[in-house]
Amino acid sequence: MSSSLLEARRELSLANMIVANEGVIDAFGHVSMRHPDNPARYLLSRSRAPELVAPDDFIEYDIESQPIRDPGVGQYSERVIHGEIYKARPDVNSVCHHHCPAFMPLLATGTDYMPIFHLGAVGGIRPPFWDQRDEFGDTNMLVIKPEEGASLARALGKHWMVLMMRHGVTVAGTSVRDCVFRSVYSARNAEYQVRAMTVGSNIAALSPGETRLAGQISAKTTGLTRSWEYWSMRVASKNGGSAAAPKQAPSGRGKAKTAKTKTRSKPKVAPKRAAKRRRR
Amino acid sequence: MSSSLLEARRELSLANMIVANEGVIDAFGHVSMRHPDNPARYLLSRSRAPELVAPDDFIEYDIESQPIRDPGVGQYSERVIHGEIYKARPDVNSVCHHHCPAFMPLLATGTDYMPIFHLGAVGGIRPPFWDQRDEFGDTNMLVIKPEEGASLARALGKHWMVLMMRHGVTVAGTSVRDCVFRSVYSARNAEYQVRAMTVGSNIAALSPGETRLAGQISAKTTGLTRSWEYWSMRVASKNGGSAAAPKQAPSGRGKAKTAKTKTRSKPKVAPKRAAKRRRR
Amino acid sequence: MSSSLLEARRELSLANMIVANEGVIDAFGHVSMRHPDNPARYLLSRSRAPELVAPDDFIEYDIESQPIRDPGVGQYSERVIHGEIYKARPDVNSVCHHHCPAFMPLLATGTDYMPIFHLGAVGGIRPPFWDQRDEFGDTNMLVIKPEEGASLARALGKHWMVLMMRHGVTVAGTSVRDCVFRSVYSARNAEYQVRAMTVGSNIAALSPGETRLAGQISAKTTGLTRSWEYWSMRVASKNGGSAAAPKQAPSGRGKAKTAKTKTRSKPKVAPKRAAKRRRR
Amino acid sequence: MSSSLLEARRELSLANMIVANEGVIDAFGHVSMRHPDNPARYLLSRSRAPELVAPDDFIEYDIESQPIRDPGVGQYSERVIHGEIYKARPDVNSVCHHHCPAFMPLLATGTDYMPIFHLGAVGGIRPPFWDQRDEFGDTNMLVIKPEEGASLARALGKHWMVLMMRHGVTVAGTSVRDCVFRSVYSARNAEYQVRAMTVGSNIAALSPGETRLAGQISAKTTGLTRSWEYWSMRVASKNGGSAAAPKQAPSGRGKAKTAKTKTRSKPKVAPKRAAKRRRR
Repeated sequence: MSSSLLEARRELSLANMIVANEGVIDAFGHVSMRHPDNPARYLLSRSRAPELVAPDDFIEYDIESQPIRDPGVGQYSERVIHGEIYKARPDVNSVCHHHCPAFMPLLATGTDYMPIFHLGAVGGIRPPFWDQRDEFGDTNMLVIKPEEGASLARALGKHWMVLMMRHGVTVAGTSVRDCVFRSVYSARNAEYQVRAMTVGSNIAALSPGETRLAGQISAKTTGLTRSWEYWSMRVASKNGGSAAAPKQAPSGRGKAKTAKTKTRSKPKVAPKRAAKRRRR
Repeated sequence: MSSSLLEARRELSLANMIVANEGVIDAFGHVSMRHPDNPARYLLSRSRAPELVAPDDFIEYDIESQPIRDPGVGQYSERVIHGEIYKARPDVNSVCHHHCPAFMPLLATGTDYMPIFHLGAVGGIRPPFWDQRDEFGDTNMLVIKPEEGASLARALGKHWMVLMMRHGVTVAGTSVRDCVFRSVYSARNAEYQVRAMTVGSNIAALSPGETRLAGQISAKTTGLTRSWEYWSMRVASKNGGSAAAPKQAPSGRGKAKTAKTKTRSKPKVAPKRAAKRRRR
Repeated sequence: MSSSLLEARRELSLANMIVANEGVIDAFGHVSMRHPDNPARYLLSRSRAPELVAPDDFIEYDIESQPIRDPGVGQYSERVIHGEIYKARPDVNSVCHHHCPAFMPLLATGTDYMPIFHLGAVGGIRPPFWDQRDEFGDTNMLVIKPEEGASLARALGKHWMVLMMRHGVTVAGTSVRDCVFRSVYSARNAEYQVRAMTVGSNIAALSPGETRLAGQISAKTTGLTRSWEYWSMRVASKNGGSAAAPKQAPSGRGKAKTAKTKTRSKPKVAPKRAAKRRRR
Repeated sequence: MSSSLLEARRELSLANMIVANEGVIDAFGHVSMRHPDNPARYLLSRSRAPELVAPDDFIEYDIESQPIRDPGVGQYSERVIHGEIYKARPDVNSVCHHHCPAFMPLLATGTDYMPIFHLGAVGGIRPPFWDQRDEFGDTNMLVIKPEEGASLARALGKHWMVLMMRHGVTVAGTSVRDCVFRSVYSARNAEYQVRAMTVGSNIAALSPGETRLAGQISAKTTGLTRSWEYWSMRVASKNGGSAAAPKQAPSGRGKAKTAKTKTRSKPKVAPKRAAKRRRR
C-alpha cells in the first residue's frame, strides 16, 4: 500500500469516528473518500458502525460501486449514494450520508434549511429536497439501486447537501475535512434553526451574500485545522488517549470474527506516547 | 446450567445494559426473554436497575409469572407484563418495558406514534394505546395483577409495541436483539417526531407500504449485527473495556448483600484481553 | 463522632453527589438532613458545590440556622430554607433546594406542575408557588432572612414541594433517600411535562386518586433501594470506582485551603476493593 | 516571565477550558484578559480550540490588536473584538466571544434576552443587539476589521453583554472569573428562557430592581469561588485529574507542529498528586 493511501485511510477512519462522536451519525451512516491515486475509485468501510471503523476496514470500489476485489466481509447496502455522486461530480472528493437527529424535524415536515449563523453557511442557500417516493414509489427507503443513487445525485446538482425526506442527509465536500466540517456545522445549524422556530416564525437567515461569503470560511485552512484538531482531540480523549479506533466490541454470536486476526495499523500518535504525556 | 442458557443469560444481561446506556431505561424498566429451552418459561432479572443486571441476576419464571424456585431476592412487581405477553404471543421471544423520556409527550397527550424515518418503522403503523384506568379505575399505575397484564397483552394484539397512557411503553420482539433494536429506534423516532411537531403540524410520516418494507430492515442480519456491535462497544467503553456489568454500587444500609458472595460469570471477551488490546 | 452520625454524613454526602450527577443541581443548591440524634439540629454542607461535598464538610446547625460551633469556613447564605422547614414540619427529615433546568419553564411562567407519569406523583397535586416579591418586594432573590425562610415554609404547608417563582424549587422528604427520590423524579416529570406541552395543550395528568396511590411507590423499600443503588453506581462509575467525593479541584487563588489538611472518611466500599473487583 | 503573569496565563487557560467544558464554546470562540501588568495590552490564545489552550499559547497584543512580537503561529482573525472593547471600557478586564447554542434562537429571531432566574441577572436588562449588516452590508460575518470591532464595542456601551445577530455573543467582565461566570449563567438563562417560551408567552422576568440586586451575586466572592471550584473540578475530572490541558490532538497532516517542542507549564495541582489523592 502506498504511504499516501495509508495516510488517506487513517484520515478517513478518523473522519468516521469524528462524525459519530459529534452526534451526526450513530450505528448507521458512513463517510467515504475518492481514491487519492485513482479518481474512478472510492473508499468506503465494510459494514460496521462508523465509530468503530479502522483504517483497514475500507473497501475499494469502482465508480459503479462494485468492489475491486472480493471483500470477504459485509458491505453497506447504500454505497451507490457515494458512487453516483463521485460519478456526477468530479469536484467532490468526499461524501457523508447520515440520519442526524438535528435534521429530522426538517426532513419530516419538508421545512427548508436556512443558515442562521455564519458557520451554518456551509449548508448553502435552500439545499434541495429529494423524495425517493416520487420516482420509485413505496420502498424500504434505502438507496440501494444504481438508479436510486443517480436520482439522488441529480437532486444534489451543484449543491453540497441534499435533504432526503423521511430518511436523512447526504453531504459532499472537496476533501474529507471539508466534508466533515460541512456535515458537523450544517447539523449544528439545523438544530439551532429548529429551536429558533419554537421562539418565533420570523427567522433572520443569512442573506445570499452573507451565505456565499461565510460559506468560504471552511475553505480557509485556519478554520478547518482548528476544528479538526479539536474534534480529533475529543475522539482521542474518549478513547483514552488514542485517535485510532481502540474499541473492539464483544463479538457476540454473530459475525465479525475476521476482525480478530487483523492487524491494526498504528495511529500517528501512538497510544503509549499519548498516555505518557498525560502522566507528566 | 446448559451452555446455551448461559449464553442466553449473557445476551440478556447485555441487552439490559444496552437499553439503559442508550437512554431508553433508567432505574426502572426491564428486558426479559423467553427461556431458550422451555417456551413456557421466561427469564427476568431480580429487582435492580437494568444497567446493573449481571447474567446470574435472572430469575426463571413460569408462564403465570411465578418463580420456578424461591429466588431469595427482590423481584420486579410488574413481571406479569412479560408473562402475559409470552402467553398470548407465541411468536414473541423478548419483551422490554420502559418509561423512555422520548415517549412521554405522546403518552401524556394521547398523540399517535408516527414513523417519520425508515428506522422508526420498527414501531409499526399507529401502535395501540392502553389506559389502565379504563378497566381498572384509579391504581398506582403499576401493572401487577395477572388480569392487568392480560389486558395489556390484549391491547398489544398483533402489534410489536403498545403505548401505556401516563406510564410507559412495552415492546415485543422475535429475539432479544430484535426487541432491543425496536426499543431503541422507536424511541429515537418518538424523539424526532415530537421535535418535528414543534416545527409544523404537517408531519410527513412513512406510508403504510414504506412502513411495512422499512420495518423489515431489522429482520436482516446486517442491521441487527451492526447496531448490536455498536451498542455493545458503547457499553464496554463506558465500563472500561468490559461488556459485563463491572459496577458494584456501594451497598449502603439497605439490601443487596447477597450480591457480594455471588460469582460473576465472565463475558465472552474477558476484560483483561480487552484491556490488553487497548494498550497496543 | 457516633457511628450513626458518621453513617448519616456519608449518606448525606452521597445524596449531594447524586442530585448533582443526575442534573438536578449544579454549582448552586444543597441537600440537608435533620440531625439523626437531635431533632432540633440539622446538617448542611459548608459553602461548596454539592458534587464536591464530602462527609466532613457538614456543619451542624441549630433550628434557628446558627452553627453549633464556629465552622471556620464559608457557609451557604440560604440555610434558613432548611432550618425553617425543619421547624415547621416535624415529619420532614431532609430538604433539597435546587434550580433544576427542567423546572425553569414552569417557574418563569407560573405554569402548574402536573404529574404526567406514575413516578411524577412524588411531586403531588398542584404543589404551591411562592413568590419572594409578594411579601418582600425587590430582593436579590436569595432566601437569607429567617422571615423569608419562614414565609417559604408556610407556602410549602403540608406539601412536599414548593415552586419558587423566578428562582428554583425546594423539596422535602421523610428521609434523605425519600428527598432525593422526590427531587429526581419531580424533575424528570417537569421535563416531560414541558415537552408534552409543545405537542398539545391537553395534558392527561394523573387523577388525584392515581397521584395519591402512585405517590406511595417511593415509600416502598423496593423502589427507593433500586434507584439509590443505581444512582450510587453512576456516581461511583464517574468517580472511577468510588462513591466518595474523589475530586479535589485545583485551589486557584481563592479560599478552600483548609480542605487540604482534612482527612477524608472512607466510603463503605473502599476504592481499592472496587478497583480490584473491576479487574477480575 | 513574572510570577503574576504566569499565574494569569494559567487562570486564563483554565477559563478557556471551562467555557468549552460547560458548553458555551466549541471549536470556535475565545476568552481573553487584559494584561495584568500593562492595561494597554491583552492576552489572547493563538488560533486553536479553547479546550486545548495551554498557558503558553497566549499571545500578547497591544490595544490595536497587533502582536507585541511575531507570534510565529496562527492568530484568531476576530481579535479586534477584544482589543476594541479593552480600548473603550477601562473597567473591563476580560472578554469572552462565543456562539453558544443556547443563544441561537434569540440571535436568529431578534428576541430580547430576559433574566428569568436570579443567576440570569448577570446578563443585565435588555442587553443590546448588534447587526454587522447594518453598518457593513454583506460580510462573512466575522469581526475582523478594527472599525467592525469598534462598532461592536459602541453597541456594547455600558452593558456586560452584546448579542450579535446571526452570529454569537460577546461578554465582558471585571475579571476572568467574573467574565466566565457571566458567560456560563447568561447561557443557562438563555436556554431556560427559550424553553419557557415554548410553554407560554407570558414570561415572568426579573424586575429591574431584582435584576440589579441579583446581578451583584457574582460580585461576591462566595458565588464566584464556589462555581469556579466546581467548574475547575469538572475540567480536571474530564482530563483525568489535572486541570491543565492534557490533550494533544494527533497532528494530522496540517499545522500545529510547533506544539510538539513546547514545554507545558505545570498546573497548580500536579497530576501525580491528584492521582495519588484519588487512590486513597
